[in-house]
Amino acid sequence: MPDLTSTANPRVKNLVRLRTRRHRDAAGVTLIEGHDELALALEAGVRPTEVYWAPDLVTDPALLDRMRGARTFSVSPEVFARIAYRESPDGWLAVADAPGRPLDSLVLRPDALVLVAEGIEKPGNVGAMLRTAEACGVDAVVIATPDRAGTDFANPNVVRASKGTVFAVPVASASSAEVLDWLRRSGLRVLVTTPAGSTELGTADLTGGSALVIGTEATGVTELWHAGADETVVIPMQGTVNSLNASIAAAVVLFEAVRQRRGTSA
Amino acid sequence: MPDLTSTANPRVKNLVRLRTRRHRDAAGVTLIEGHDELALALEAGVRPTEVYWAPDLVTDPALLDRMRGARTFSVSPEVFARIAYRESPDGWLAVADAPGRPLDSLVLRPDALVLVAEGIEKPGNVGAMLRTAEACGVDAVVIATPDRAGTDFANPNVVRASKGTVFAVPVASASSAEVLDWLRRSGLRVLVTTPAGSTELGTADLTGGSALVIGTEATGVTELWHAGADETVVIPMQGTVNSLNASIAAAVVLFEAVRQRRGTSA
Repeated sequence: MPDLTSTANPRVKNLVRLRTRRHRDAAGVTLIEGHDELALALEAGVRPTEVYWAPDLVTDPALLDRMRGARTFSVSPEVFARIAYRESPDGWLAVADAPGRPLDSLVLRPDALVLVAEGIEKPGNVGAMLRTAEACGVDAVVIATPDRAGTDFANPNVVRASKGTVFAVPVASASSAEVLDWLRRSGLRVLVTTPAGSTELGTADLTGGSALVIGTEATGVTELWHAGADETVVIPMQGTVNSLNASIAAAVVLFEAVRQRRGTSA
Repeated sequence: MPDLTSTANPRVKNLVRLRTRRHRDAAGVTLIEGHDELALALEAGVRPTEVYWAPDLVTDPALLDRMRGARTFSVSPEVFARIAYRESPDGWLAVADAPGRPLDSLVLRPDALVLVAEGIEKPGNVGAMLRTAEACGVDAVVIATPDRAGTDFANPNVVRASKGTVFAVPVASASSAEVLDWLRRSGLRVLVTTPAGSTELGTADLTGGSALVIGTEATGVTELWHAGADETVVIPMQGTVNSLNASIAAAVVLFEAVRQRRGTSA
């Protein structure tokens, strides 16, 4: 008999509430759904506080042995159907501290490499950027928002799209003005990627402490970044449409930075 | 009074049928929905055969002047609601020849750059790859399928995610064995990107005629490509998760090829 069999249980009701950002923000938590996502989060050092699993659905109950310190609850298929947010639930749902930290708690080494993305909201794009940033060993990923409080790294779709890397890379979000001020105080050069950039990517020096700034596909970065940039960088393109996905543009500049820092050259 | 006001009209019924691949394949056509997508396709040289537009919905009727040679039909909002496949239709839908051509009709110059993606099916990933390939000036994008007839470049969601570039880049799809055979006959070096690659991306020579091969995120390329590769290439990564989106991996290798071909070096 599972621990939880009634959808009227207060824990079940709380999990349903946590699907909305307001409740997640208030509790300072995120939801991680799915075996693979949970395994990746565990590998990244996440320690879930609560784990809900449906014995009738899961195929790898051994994952339970890795949930050190978490309160675990077995649940009936009916309860899991209520708490799952995916279309094809696999019987795993965990609650963990929300990723993301205050900007000022991020202390950077002088030659740090930071990705700044302004106004990027699609969970798929944020997730792809986090995966790339992790693979490139960046020191932080910061989402800058032109006009409001911050991006929701705890959005379960961001957690999912990031394949767990949202827990493996230091992440923060703040207003664009706050982010620019923080970069200045951290002593990083601010390099803004824009089709109107004056330096070609291959000739910009990315070997020192650098913040690489990417804007939205539709409108690019806001004026504040053009004014505050130490250098504007253009990705060389040869087509006629020349339309790159924002997460692709981020990858191209990040891998160029990695290439320069490794000293590899053709 | 619009030309078409009845959802029982045979043209309306035909457009609804064209949402399924079977009917598109039989007719050899694709659907292009939306003002911006249609404008991009026109810029890429596409000549729609039929254009359906709803005067009550469109905001830029001047687009109609660019549809040379197409049969145009104004339709009522009710008819457009039936023929649209998007959630928020903007009053434009066109029928055009399907993108993609037989592999053997693609004749390559000796130093061609070709992207081969095996088993990539998500319209978002195919679309992002096409956008990147267009920006990199590749000679062709080929989707190789391990086990069946081919990818559906005419899928309206691929057309949309590609931002029209599916019409601007030569595209083809065929079985993996056929694609490998075609590459051999074209005299290109076959470079397979894989985490187990023996050459680091930065040291692989991509300046000659090259086919860059990318597999799926879950399982990589099939054995045929490992056996047929002239060189296996690894993208250097520094994290612990090291999980790149397939379209990001494609972009990293393509932009490295572009960099080498431009002779730019740090």
